[in-house]
Amino acid sequence: MPLNPDAVGSKGEPIEVSWNSKDCLLYAVGIGAGAGDLAFTTENTNGVEQVVFPTFPVVIGWGRGSAMGNIGSFNPALLVHGQQSVTPHRPIPVEGHATLQSEVTAMYDKGKAAVVVTSTAAVMDGEPLYTTTSSIFIRGEGGWGGERGPSGPQNVPPERDPDHHVTYQTSPDQALVYRLSGDRNPLHSDPAFAAMGGFDRPILHGLCTYGFTGRGLLAVLCGNDPARFHHVEGRFTSPVYPGEALTVEIWETEPGEAVFTTSVGERAVIDQGLVRYS
Amino acid sequence: MPLNPDAVGSKGEPIEVSWNSKDCLLYAVGIGAGAGDLAFTTENTNGVEQVVFPTFPVVIGWGRGSAMGNIGSFNPALLVHGQQSVTPHRPIPVEGHATLQSEVTAMYDKGKAAVVVTSTAAVMDGEPLYTTTSSIFIRGEGGWGGERGPSGPQNVPPERDPDHHVTYQTSPDQALVYRLSGDRNPLHSDPAFAAMGGFDRPILHGLCTYGFTGRGLLAVLCGNDPARFHHVEGRFTSPVYPGEALTVEIWETEPGEAVFTTSVGERAVIDQGLVRYS
Repeated sequence: MPLNPDAVGSKGEPIEVSWNSKDCLLYAVGIGAGAGDLAFTTENTNGVEQVVFPTFPVVIGWGRGSAMGNIGSFNPALLVHGQQSVTPHRPIPVEGHATLQSEVTAMYDKGKAAVVVTSTAAVMDGEPLYTTTSSIFIRGEGGWGGERGPSGPQNVPPERDPDHHVTYQTSPDQALVYRLSGDRNPLHSDPAFAAMGGFDRPILHGLCTYGFTGRGLLAVLCGNDPARFHHVEGRFTSPVYPGEALTVEIWETEPGEAVFTTSVGERAVIDQGLVRYS
Repeated sequence: MPLNPDAVGSKGEPIEVSWNSKDCLLYAVGIGAGAGDLAFTTENTNGVEQVVFPTFPVVIGWGRGSAMGNIGSFNPALLVHGQQSVTPHRPIPVEGHATLQSEVTAMYDKGKAAVVVTSTAAVMDGEPLYTTTSSIFIRGEGGWGGERGPSGPQNVPPERDPDHHVTYQTSPDQALVYRLSGDRNPLHSDPAFAAMGGFDRPILHGLCTYGFTGRGLLAVLCGNDPARFHHVEGRFTSPVYPGEALTVEIWETEPGEAVFTTSVGERAVIDQGLVRYS
């Protein structure tokens, strides 16, 4: 059964979510924060107020309320996470509750594949808290004669050395900590399941790589102050294996804006990255 | 105000506790289990049933219901964790609820210090689930003319090379993961707080070292089957810094019984260890 392109504009059921300090701490260690990041990894360090990584919204309400259910049926094994953005409208509090509303914002027909874009808006105490968008690439769908959507690379780094770079080592067991924040897909833990997907061993969650990347951007561009971090987007291009080291290269392109690439050695794993900050 | 030796035999308020699969997974990664321990670190690996480390009881009901409140007031800064035992009467289920009852089982007068022994019995569905005991050393107390208690080393290894040894690397951020299982004492995370205690930097939780030790005993002696692990006890002798490697040396002393020492290099960190298994 083909996808239903009329799903654009349709919404998922609003859901109520809540999180607490421990959820934020667990997410922080899941994306590799440690003794150098006590504002994110502890709640009781003297003189240090606990704050929350701005990419934490990607795990809030994990797996619930998505408008993806409106687009029709497809084989989830053929789905790949394409792009992801996070736009905190203000710092995420260490504990809170919000209403999340997901919407299908675009569906693109790539001929032999479809791209579906969903956005999720979070409202807390009557005010927008954050917006996330995900674009999902589904092989074997498409062909309904719809628009192909934007093409060509965006957020391309200038032809010069990066202005900043930072490297973080992931742990061989990184995915086993990260998954406790919600995404229990055995692709990230079960060797036999990963082998069925064509991988030598379980791969790291793309959103874990994304979190490490956000840590680097926040540290380098915002002095680790979440209030200065306004938007991040990027495209997943290659899997990461737990234990690999991630290097984030950053080019400042205009005031308050930079593009970035995250790589393992020469292999880009997130590209076309854009970050806005103050 | 001196301690009250008549507190021996007194009980704490019974408390109701519950835990779930995620709590067990978080404890497992907190004591360094990883991709080689999927029965402990995942709940959905094909063909693998989730099981629980037998030392998990040390975090169940953390900080609640202790009978220590019955012994009188003392300066908690002068308290040191001396010995710890865990006796699972059957494997700990991945989720459950139990009633815990703590009791002061002994108070020893060391002259310029006191030793207080408490035990906690857990009952689930009307049947004993586990018993733990802790002995606490309190400097500056004692002197009430009470018994000095047992003295001299117990569970001394024989004069020969150990029958088994296993080494585990702790992570520099190990305490930041372990603490999410309950013990948020800033001695294990806040450098300034640790410095006030006389430490160069935050030290690992003794019970985290204990958990690593239990992992080693379970792997070597029980083929990682919690049903074969019946009792462990040991004495904390030296702090461990996150990032240090722990070596557990094991001597089989009689069928189903072994003594052990856990060390960092030449420095014993848990000694007088005894384990019973089948």
